Amino acid sequence: MMRAIELAKMGEGLTRPNPPVGAVLVLEGHIVAEGWHRKAGEDHAERDCIGKLPPMPVNLSSATLYVTLEPCSTHGRTPPCTDIILEKGIGRVVVSVVDLNPAHAGRGLKILEEAGVEVVSGVCEAEGRELVAPFEKFITSGMPYVTLKLASTLDGKIADSEGNSKWITGAEARERVQAMRRRADAIMVGAGTVRADNPSLLPRPSEGREPFRVVIGTTIPADCKVLTDGAAGRTFVRYGALVGVLKELAEEHSVMHVLCEGGGKLAARLIEDGLVDEFVFFIAPKLMGADGLPNFAQTGGLIAGVKELKFHSVEQVGEDILIKAKMEK
Amino acid sequence: MMRAIELAKMGEGLTRPNPPVGAVLVLEGHIVAEGWHRKAGEDHAERDCIGKLPPMPVNLSSATLYVTLEPCSTHGRTPPCTDIILEKGIGRVVVSVVDLNPAHAGRGLKILEEAGVEVVSGVCEAEGRELVAPFEKFITSGMPYVTLKLASTLDGKIADSEGNSKWITGAEARERVQAMRRRADAIMVGAGTVRADNPSLLPRPSEGREPFRVVIGTTIPADCKVLTDGAAGRTFVRYGALVGVLKELAEEHSVMHVLCEGGGKLAARLIEDGLVDEFVFFIAPKLMGADGLPNFAQTGGLIAGVKELKFHSVEQVGEDILIKAKMEK
Repeated sequence: MMRAIELAKMGEGLTRPNPPVGAVLVLEGHIVAEGWHRKAGEDHAERDCIGKLPPMPVNLSSATLYVTLEPCSTHGRTPPCTDIILEKGIGRVVVSVVDLNPAHAGRGLKILEEAGVEVVSGVCEAEGRELVAPFEKFITSGMPYVTLKLASTLDGKIADSEGNSKWITGAEARERVQAMRRRADAIMVGAGTVRADNPSLLPRPSEGREPFRVVIGTTIPADCKVLTDGAAGRTFVRYGALVGVLKELAEEHSVMHVLCEGGGKLAARLIEDGLVDEFVFFIAPKLMGADGLPNFAQTGGLIAGVKELKFHSVEQVGEDILIKAKMEK
Repeated sequence: MMRAIELAKMGEGLTRPNPPVGAVLVLEGHIVAEGWHRKAGEDHAERDCIGKLPPMPVNLSSATLYVTLEPCSTHGRTPPCTDIILEKGIGRVVVSVVDLNPAHAGRGLKILEEAGVEVVSGVCEAEGRELVAPFEKFITSGMPYVTLKLASTLDGKIADSEGNSKWITGAEARERVQAMRRRADAIMVGAGTVRADNPSLLPRPSEGREPFRVVIGTTIPADCKVLTDGAAGRTFVRYGALVGVLKELAEEHSVMHVLCEGGGKLAARLIEDGLVDEFVFFIAPKLMGADGLPNFAQTGGLIAGVKELKFHSVEQVGEDILIKAKMEK
C-alpha cells in the first residue's frame, strides 16, 4: 500500500478536480503492474494499473489489487473501476481510504463484495487520508485545503527591516518548497510579497504542473513576473474577504489545494479567519532582530487570546528545521 | 561508559570548581561498583566507585574501570586517583576524555601505562566532552560557559504586549528548564524579567543545588523574591559590561556554567557580545502577534549582518519543540 501511495503522489497537483490515486497489482507475492491517476479525464489508477498487464490471458483470481482510494462505481468521464476489476476476475481488493464523497462511500466496495471479491479497507489509512486531505476538504465543504508555508528566522522574521529576504532558509528547504508547489493547485501570496520580491511562484522544475497564482491585494507593479510571464493567464489578483476568494477558486477553477507563501499580513488574515488547514514552518538558524518583518503580522494579541496550534512533526532539513502544525480545535 | 556518563550527571551543578565525573568498575562482564564526584573536597569518582567494593581482597587485574575523565595524578584536596587505581591492581582503565587542563593532559594515563595498566581513551568522547564543556571553558579561558535558554512562540515572542508570559510553554518543557537549572552554577536574567515576573529562579526540586542568581540591570523591586527569599545571600545584581560580570562570577565564585533565561534585551546583548556558548530554544505551538515581546530585542539588523547559528538537535518535548544550537563560527 505504501508503494501505491508513492505512485499516487506522482499525480498530486495534476488531477483536479479528482483526487490523486495509486494502485499496485500483486500476484504470487510479486508486483506485476503499477498505475496512478495522471489527470482528470484520463484513466483512473485501477485502470491505468491493470492496463499495464501483458496482453495475454492471466488468471487473476489469486491476485490482490492495492488501491489508495475506494474504486469508483459510477460512470464519469471514464467507465467505473469496479467494472474492470470484475471483468479481469481479480480475487482480492485492498483499499486505504473509502470514498470521501458521502453519496458514494462504500458503494464500490459493496458491488465488489457482492460479486465475490474479497475486500479489505483501512490499510495505511493515516497516510492514505493525508494524501487526499485536499480532495476531502474540497468535496465535503466546497472550499480548498489551505497550506500556509512560512520561512522565518528563530525570532520569527521573514525579512529584514528593509524587506530583504534572500535567503532566510538554505537550499534544501527551498527545494522542499518547490516540491510543495508541485503538489498545490494554486500558489497564493500577498501583494506586498510581489512588490518586495517579484517572485514567479511557479514550481521549478514544473514536472507538468500548471498551478494558478493568486495575489491578494490591490497594488502590484504591471511589469511583475506573475502578470507578464508565460503563465500570466493563470494569475488572479483579488481583494476582499479571503473566504470569498477561496470559494471562487474552488467553484470556478476546481482548486482543491492552495499553498499560501505569506507574507506576514496575509498569514495573519488567514489565521484570524480560521482558513488554514495545515501550517508548514521552516525555521532558519538565524536571529534577525526585533525590527525585522514578522511572520505573523497581527497586533493586539494577548496571551489569553493567543492562537493555539498543535505540532504534528518536526525534522531537520539541511541547515533548517521543518515543523508541521495544525490549528488546535 | 554511557552508564559512567549518567552517573557523572548526578554531580552536575554541585562540583564547582571541579568537573562532574562518573566511574564504573566492571569485573567478568558485571558492574561491581559505581561512583561519581559529588562535591569539591569530597572523593573523586574513581575513589568513590572503588570505595564501594565489599571490604574483602579481590583480584582486580582482570577488571576494567570506566571513567568519564582522565584520572588525576596530582595531590589536591584529595590524593591522586592514579594512586588508588594502582594500589587496587586494576588491570585496565577506559577513559572518555583526557584531562582538559593543558598542564595535566595525558599525565594520569601515562603514569598508569608505565605501571602496566592497559589504557584506552576517547570512548564515547562526544558525550563525555559535552558533559565537561562548562569545565573546559572555565579551565581554558577563565570564563563561564553560557547557555542561553529562550522560550518563545512560533513568532518569536516571549511575552505578550502587556508583559504576560505565563505560560508560553507546556508543563514538560518547564520541567526541562528545572533540570537545566540544576545543572548550572548560576541563573542569570535581565532586570525587566524580575520586574515583570518576580521569579525565584531556583530549581524545583533543588536536589541539593544552590545556584547563584544574577540580575543584570539597575532597578528591581526591593521586595522581589531573589532579594528576599532564603537564598537571597547568593543573589548578585550587576550592571555594566557583561564580559566583566561573567569574569567576576568565574574568578570570585568558581561559576563554570551560567544559564541565562532572558529576557530579550539581555539575550540580544549576550549574542551581540559573542558570549553565548549554547542556545536552547523552546518553541511553543502558539502565535502571539507582532507587538509581543521579542526573544531577540536587537534592532537595526539587516539580512547581511544576521546572526548565524547552527542547529545541533531538535526534538518534541510535550506539546513544544526543543532546539539546541550554537553560534556559527
